[in-house]
Amino acid sequence: MIHEYEKIEELGIKDYKIIQSKREFCFGSDAVLLARFAKIKKGACVLDICSGTGIIPLLLDGMYEPSEIYSLEIMPSASDMARRSFEMNKLEHKIHAVCGDLKNAADIFGKHRFDAVTVNPPYMPAGKGLVNPKNALAVARHEILCTLDDVLKAAAQVLRPCGKLYMVHRADRLCDVICTFRKYGIEPKRMQTVYPDTKSRATLILLEGLAGGGKQLITEEPIFMYDNDGNYLQSIK
Amino acid sequence: MIHEYEKIEELGIKDYKIIQSKREFCFGSDAVLLARFAKIKKGACVLDICSGTGIIPLLLDGMYEPSEIYSLEIMPSASDMARRSFEMNKLEHKIHAVCGDLKNAADIFGKHRFDAVTVNPPYMPAGKGLVNPKNALAVARHEILCTLDDVLKAAAQVLRPCGKLYMVHRADRLCDVICTFRKYGIEPKRMQTVYPDTKSRATLILLEGLAGGGKQLITEEPIFMYDNDGNYLQSIK
Repeated sequence: MIHEYEKIEELGIKDYKIIQSKREFCFGSDAVLLARFAKIKKGACVLDICSGTGIIPLLLDGMYEPSEIYSLEIMPSASDMARRSFEMNKLEHKIHAVCGDLKNAADIFGKHRFDAVTVNPPYMPAGKGLVNPKNALAVARHEILCTLDDVLKAAAQVLRPCGKLYMVHRADRLCDVICTFRKYGIEPKRMQTVYPDTKSRATLILLEGLAGGGKQLITEEPIFMYDNDGNYLQSIK
Repeated sequence: MIHEYEKIEELGIKDYKIIQSKREFCFGSDAVLLARFAKIKKGACVLDICSGTGIIPLLLDGMYEPSEIYSLEIMPSASDMARRSFEMNKLEHKIHAVCGDLKNAADIFGKHRFDAVTVNPPYMPAGKGLVNPKNALAVARHEILCTLDDVLKAAAQVLRPCGKLYMVHRADRLCDVICTFRKYGIEPKRMQTVYPDTKSRATLILLEGLAGGGKQLITEEPIFMYDNDGNYLQSIK
């Protein structure tokens, strides 16, 4: 079930495990923060886009009670790893790995089908920063195969009215994120800012948008990753 | 110099005092937070709009070394109070009270004249919430005489290229604020979020915009107003 260049990691929730590559990207705290931030209702039908090796669908299934989750990923190697992880956890009846381009999400899944969409998109605009020569890493980190605009456009097409979009992104792109949510009629309703500690600049933002929602944003209490000695806080562990 | 319905308050900085009305609005922590957040360069020419009774110009002059500050306020009674406060502190040679509509700011002051603009605008959209029957309070709190759009339009006209706009606003209007900054070409570059304490939702945001700036936002460390016992934190006092 796994290749020699792969490893299996425990998720620490319901005995779920995930297959990760030893040489490419692995999931980070971003995925855990997003899964914790998302409030998935019991019985919801969920789509995770830019899904990578499927960490977010596994965490969502472990933390909530959705009826179905689709994991959409454009890179065949990552999507295949996700599919094998779902099988390894005997979850293939409710978590489905789909290899495809999110720009075709409405064709693949049909319009206005999902109660919630989650996304941990590439953080860097294409052409900015050092582009990693290993392609899978580059695709995961840079807006090479999809831009923020593509993500919002796809989400707006597949979310049902009053459906929710949950995103984690770099704090320095907050303005792009908010303006692009609004451009596609998904109003930001709830935000949480992630700081390394009480004395440092924010690194990540978590945002919940409501398809067709009215204007008013709640900014929840800040999240700190480490105490002042640089250790993970208990709430983060 | 003061009327019977007025009082004089100490600002706790350079022995500056301010005249306040006993029956209308008084300055709050918002003004102090904004003055502290603004980084006014030595010799800068500054405009404070929606200036009320002139608290922000007094604080800026006490904390930084601007060459000149203009205090623009539409309500004659508040602007007159500001003028008398500047005189009382013998600052009338460098802080000027101007009674006028910010929609005419470019006509009053000339275009692209200021290095920095500060603003503590009305927080509530017109028609939302309970409108206070006392007119001065209503004007200060609601977008009756000026909207967020008016504020940004005026700021964009009077700021020089690379001039800075500093705003304090309610946290629940962050999306409106960011999108309106961008609409008028003033890119948000630095933000700070104000929380009552570490466990509560944000109440205020402080935002610095750069006229003609490139996209990238820094979110500085959070500000907490109170400790967990409800007392002002030392840094806020």
